[in-house]
Amino acid sequence: MSLIVQKFGGSSVKDAQRIRNVAGIIAETYLEGNDVLVVLSAQGDTTDDLIAKAEEINPHASKREMDMLLSTGEQISVALCAMALESMGLPCISLAAWQVGIHSTSVHSDARIRKIDTERIQAELDQHRIVIVTGFQGVDRSGDVTTLGRGGSDTSAVALAAAFRASLCQIYTDVDGVYTTDPRIVSNARKLEEITYDEMLELASQGAQVLHNRSVELAKKFRVNLEVVSSLERKPGTKVKEVTKVEKTNIAGVAKDTSIARVALVGLQHNPGVAFQVFDLLSKHNINVDVILQSIGREDTKDITFTIHKKDLEEAEDVLNEHKDALRFDHIEADEHIGKVSIVGAGLMSNCGVAAKMFEALYEAGINIQMINTSEIRVSVLLDEEDVNRAVKAIHAKFFDET
Amino acid sequence: MSLIVQKFGGSSVKDAQRIRNVAGIIAETYLEGNDVLVVLSAQGDTTDDLIAKAEEINPHASKREMDMLLSTGEQISVALCAMALESMGLPCISLAAWQVGIHSTSVHSDARIRKIDTERIQAELDQHRIVIVTGFQGVDRSGDVTTLGRGGSDTSAVALAAAFRASLCQIYTDVDGVYTTDPRIVSNARKLEEITYDEMLELASQGAQVLHNRSVELAKKFRVNLEVVSSLERKPGTKVKEVTKVEKTNIAGVAKDTSIARVALVGLQHNPGVAFQVFDLLSKHNINVDVILQSIGREDTKDITFTIHKKDLEEAEDVLNEHKDALRFDHIEADEHIGKVSIVGAGLMSNCGVAAKMFEALYEAGINIQMINTSEIRVSVLLDEEDVNRAVKAIHAKFFDET
Repeated sequence: MSLIVQKFGGSSVKDAQRIRNVAGIIAETYLEGNDVLVVLSAQGDTTDDLIAKAEEINPHASKREMDMLLSTGEQISVALCAMALESMGLPCISLAAWQVGIHSTSVHSDARIRKIDTERIQAELDQHRIVIVTGFQGVDRSGDVTTLGRGGSDTSAVALAAAFRASLCQIYTDVDGVYTTDPRIVSNARKLEEITYDEMLELASQGAQVLHNRSVELAKKFRVNLEVVSSLERKPGTKVKEVTKVEKTNIAGVAKDTSIARVALVGLQHNPGVAFQVFDLLSKHNINVDVILQSIGREDTKDITFTIHKKDLEEAEDVLNEHKDALRFDHIEADEHIGKVSIVGAGLMSNCGVAAKMFEALYEAGINIQMINTSEIRVSVLLDEEDVNRAVKAIHAKFFDET
Repeated sequence: MSLIVQKFGGSSVKDAQRIRNVAGIIAETYLEGNDVLVVLSAQGDTTDDLIAKAEEINPHASKREMDMLLSTGEQISVALCAMALESMGLPCISLAAWQVGIHSTSVHSDARIRKIDTERIQAELDQHRIVIVTGFQGVDRSGDVTTLGRGGSDTSAVALAAAFRASLCQIYTDVDGVYTTDPRIVSNARKLEEITYDEMLELASQGAQVLHNRSVELAKKFRVNLEVVSSLERKPGTKVKEVTKVEKTNIAGVAKDTSIARVALVGLQHNPGVAFQVFDLLSKHNINVDVILQSIGREDTKDITFTIHKKDLEEAEDVLNEHKDALRFDHIEADEHIGKVSIVGAGLMSNCGVAAKMFEALYEAGINIQMINTSEIRVSVLLDEEDVNRAVKAIHAKFFDET
């Protein structure tokens, strides 16, 4: 008998009909002879409704009390789902995170899971009950309720799968898997059967929104077999694994990100440590820097160019200008109208033809590359924002239409 | 520094404005230098909304999962109330029953409080925080959430007041105290300044709906100073105590109950044990019997008359008719159109003039008495249902207008 963890997001449990649908998926898995551990998010709009209630009373409520309030959302979901399974005559029990013992740090609204007690859940599984656990939440050392922040329910599911050595952790969403690129841009985008943890991580951080980075990192660390699958259609999803088919030579996908801005510090003095000073300053203001490029400028100066999130642009310019004398640069050039397109694939950089193929596609489409940045399994290019979708199409066609 | 427990019901916290009002009352008590322990019910319609959600999915959901679902209601209330107090700059913390350690029996939907841990709350009070606790709920030995059934939040408040030896337990409602009778029937009904536990118990069980019996019994047992007070108007309420003013000679109030039916078993054989057989049979079917009267019938038979709740009438008749041969009665006479009017007052029966005064009032009003039943501090009469309100007015006038 193998244990399967199934996680359903807010839209999958948004009303009575969807909850019955979810109960049907769970029942099927259970009746096939598996132990089933279910993790649920709050119903569709519940969290937003609760936030609205809080803001009417106190727009600056403490995070501790917000967690106390919001954690009721998942508790409602698990109780309702248990009732749906009861109506099908299936043995089941709902448990809140504090009942399980999902121990977390005390950082309210953004806690990290420290440890999961297995005793209570195991006792219920031993009685052949389907166990339904609140996602997104934990309990800290003082017994206070915490929430896990963005991607929290996925993280709960993967952490439970790791703690119970589940044979599979299924993440049910309203898409049916991970695609080679955004199907809204490229109509013949293909669903991937398999993807490696690293590829999924790069795709997630390069703009694909199927799984949150945290849950993929955790899955990689504990070698949890992940599967992204649709709660609305019964068809195979995408498996996220340590190693995928050896014969695979193609890239996993094409991702885009248009939320970035480019900043260039022009005419920096050639003294050592200036790059450190620039990025130390930005990090002290919580400004995340992505692609960095340093080039030799005119005469004895150099230029440093980097990308940041659009929302941080104004603050970055202010901070840098304030320290203009210490940093000794000539001026700042900023550009909000850029975008990043990336290809991701295991072993990509050890196969030099792959990057060249990407550049060829862009050349053929007449698209100018501003900057290039690479990792072991990713190549990203910076482009004019208006070229982004055209670039995605061209690159996707190059890699997937010709194979 | 004294500790005051304040309990607010669902209508007192039904929206943001009411919650702010409640926070104002709490703040005032706290700023007068008291420790404050607050107990809240779920907001106005929350419980009904949650029940509707459950019924859409499973009209026969287990009580265990209903408790899991419904207990979110009070958790929402306490978090929102804490946020309101935070916005006033007051130190506070909300706690669910499981965080406090309000240990209960495992009878879901109707649990009894077994024990209250004082450690967590005391630690918060020691830091001069206002502590806001979910009423109506507990946690059982296995760590499952329970709810306490009717009057549950009042019971939570009184139990906490007992555990912490609070100097006062205030029950805030939308009426401003306990009245000599229902102000909707008698416009000059008077608010009582004080009432004894026993009087309150008799009034509550005779139809007055201000406090639930359970909480009054608990208050009596642990000598908790109770006060019923309005959350909407700032004026003195009614104090419930062990002993009230010694000089008090009048009754505490007049109560009515029209939810009862009268059943008479006519022509029972005169054999011993027949009364036991009848009431044993009814109790086995969970039918509560109130007033019982046994009279000598024609020839060698007797009649047994008793009252039960209207809703139980049909089942009682069926059960008794099924056992007609064993019980050996002639026939059943049932009457749904009756009502009960009671006067309640400490020391009432040791003052024989009091009962006579009640009968005099009914005689003057031309109202026929069907049955009479008395306790140490109560006299109840059974009347035609249509005479009930007139009887209440006449008796109230006799006792309160003439004094």
